[in-house]
Amino acid sequence: MNSDARWIVGVDLGGTNIVTGLLPVEGGEVLGLRKLPTESSRGAKFVVDRMIGMIETSITEVLEQNDGTREQIAGIGIGAPGPLHRESGTVIETPNLGWRNFPLRDLVAERVGLPATLDNDANCATYGEWWLGAGRDVDTLVGLTLGTGIGGGIVLNGKIFHGASDSAAEIGHMTIDANGRRCKCGNYGCLEAYASGPAIALRAVEGLEAGSPSILGELVGGEFGRITAATVYEAAVQGDAYANECMKETAKLLGAGVASIVNILNPEMIVIAGGVTSAGERLFEPLRWEVRRRAFRSASEHCRIVSAELPGTAGVVGAAAVFKLEHMGSV
Amino acid sequence: MNSDARWIVGVDLGGTNIVTGLLPVEGGEVLGLRKLPTESSRGAKFVVDRMIGMIETSITEVLEQNDGTREQIAGIGIGAPGPLHRESGTVIETPNLGWRNFPLRDLVAERVGLPATLDNDANCATYGEWWLGAGRDVDTLVGLTLGTGIGGGIVLNGKIFHGASDSAAEIGHMTIDANGRRCKCGNYGCLEAYASGPAIALRAVEGLEAGSPSILGELVGGEFGRITAATVYEAAVQGDAYANECMKETAKLLGAGVASIVNILNPEMIVIAGGVTSAGERLFEPLRWEVRRRAFRSASEHCRIVSAELPGTAGVVGAAAVFKLEHMGSV
Repeated sequence: MNSDARWIVGVDLGGTNIVTGLLPVEGGEVLGLRKLPTESSRGAKFVVDRMIGMIETSITEVLEQNDGTREQIAGIGIGAPGPLHRESGTVIETPNLGWRNFPLRDLVAERVGLPATLDNDANCATYGEWWLGAGRDVDTLVGLTLGTGIGGGIVLNGKIFHGASDSAAEIGHMTIDANGRRCKCGNYGCLEAYASGPAIALRAVEGLEAGSPSILGELVGGEFGRITAATVYEAAVQGDAYANECMKETAKLLGAGVASIVNILNPEMIVIAGGVTSAGERLFEPLRWEVRRRAFRSASEHCRIVSAELPGTAGVVGAAAVFKLEHMGSV
Repeated sequence: MNSDARWIVGVDLGGTNIVTGLLPVEGGEVLGLRKLPTESSRGAKFVVDRMIGMIETSITEVLEQNDGTREQIAGIGIGAPGPLHRESGTVIETPNLGWRNFPLRDLVAERVGLPATLDNDANCATYGEWWLGAGRDVDTLVGLTLGTGIGGGIVLNGKIFHGASDSAAEIGHMTIDANGRRCKCGNYGCLEAYASGPAIALRAVEGLEAGSPSILGELVGGEFGRITAATVYEAAVQGDAYANECMKETAKLLGAGVASIVNILNPEMIVIAGGVTSAGERLFEPLRWEVRRRAFRSASEHCRIVSAELPGTAGVVGAAAVFKLEHMGSV
């Protein structure tokens, strides 16, 4: 590792968007931020080409604005959907992208001409919050990102916990109802099947169809099919009682899962990310209450449950932090 | 630490029994093993006196048989029910023993005149299996002891994982049914409420009362109230179809919890201890099947689910291992 290194590139490859940017080695704001849709339907070559183009654009912008040279870029941290094999830098299987045993890390490293690392996207988002976000003053935290799915990450003593085969922290696929609804993963009653964005929207629509009075219908011009989790938060913020009920129900189910994490891992902090956090205390107040009700006091009273602080960039920040740890020895 | 140390005392203090013994520093068989009922109703002083008497008896026996001297005893590792505060060696609260903020470690150390350590009993049982039992060739494992309750322990990279406030690994109190039956801990739908010994017996009796044909009634002379989990295994081993169904149902519910652990922690091994393991493959075969069905393949295919190998002594072995780690630097 050259001692002139000033920046690390972070890449957050998701099923929906690719985000790239540069982090100062010592931490700070994300520079040269770029975000484009993944358009995975156009194939692996398209996605990789787009990602590399974005990396180059981010690098060029930062070097130009700072009179820097390419030698000052330490390397590239990549976050990608799992399961993956970190040692070989390979994405094992990503249904969203249609990839199998794809040697993403070395492909990117060769094309850009810089060393690279690969880790799971949800791990990176959690690690980003640990490095520069909500968890910057703790050693041990668990991250949950509520979106189309529920991603999870575990940071223990300042390092991502990967488990025996890089598959740890699939917290969204913890069963909270053994006889519950089928999850996309094949399991039954997963947390994701109750507290992901689509699950929140589905539950809201079920109630509307059963006749619950609400402004939700108006917000989507009467087309219930257009209701998303975001519509539900919006209605709750506007004071809609039914939408508030939906948020409370979500907080309760999420709380059952979070309480299990508190009982199992006894973390200092749980960081919740994703659109759902825009509901603010409408979500967090009943969530904290439910966790206190369910978890052991000796664990819950030592655990802060907070909102993520780096929406949109946590994945980029964390991917860069993974690179820093692996190539520079510490973050 | 004196360099002549040849043995470490291990103490397993449970709500039902106290077990003591000595472990050679380098590992091996438990020597001078003693086991007596705790009789906690007789008060803290009685329990501590009994424990210290047993420690002295174990020490004396081993020293006499080996021509040893008291200087060759390194110290005492104690496992006790939690929650506890390891740094101060204090049991914070133990409903079974009626103790609150009880400075057990220093009390024992002073009375016996040897250094001591204190850790959670379920942690110790898991650590014992890691040191000298089923997990001696792995770095990362999760232990579950199915008894009156369900105790849990997590060993990561050869060390007990304690969490932020010594409260981690309460795996029995992971919710597997968010709207399920109330657990003794105050939570709802905990794994313990479905797969502990009493829960297994309760489910069996419910079916009998509903008229399921079985030899279970005969085994207890028609008194259903005398049916325990052990009666159920016994009937299953004798080929009773209904008892076998009960075992399968237990394996299924246990499997939902174990699959969550596999998805969250991705351990190399899960070690199941307790009377229920005497059911052998009648439990393990459907349990493994259920875990494979529910957990991510990338995690489940790297996880062995096995029976504990140190029934009755894992707690003593693990308590000694904790002492060894804390006072000698490694196990």
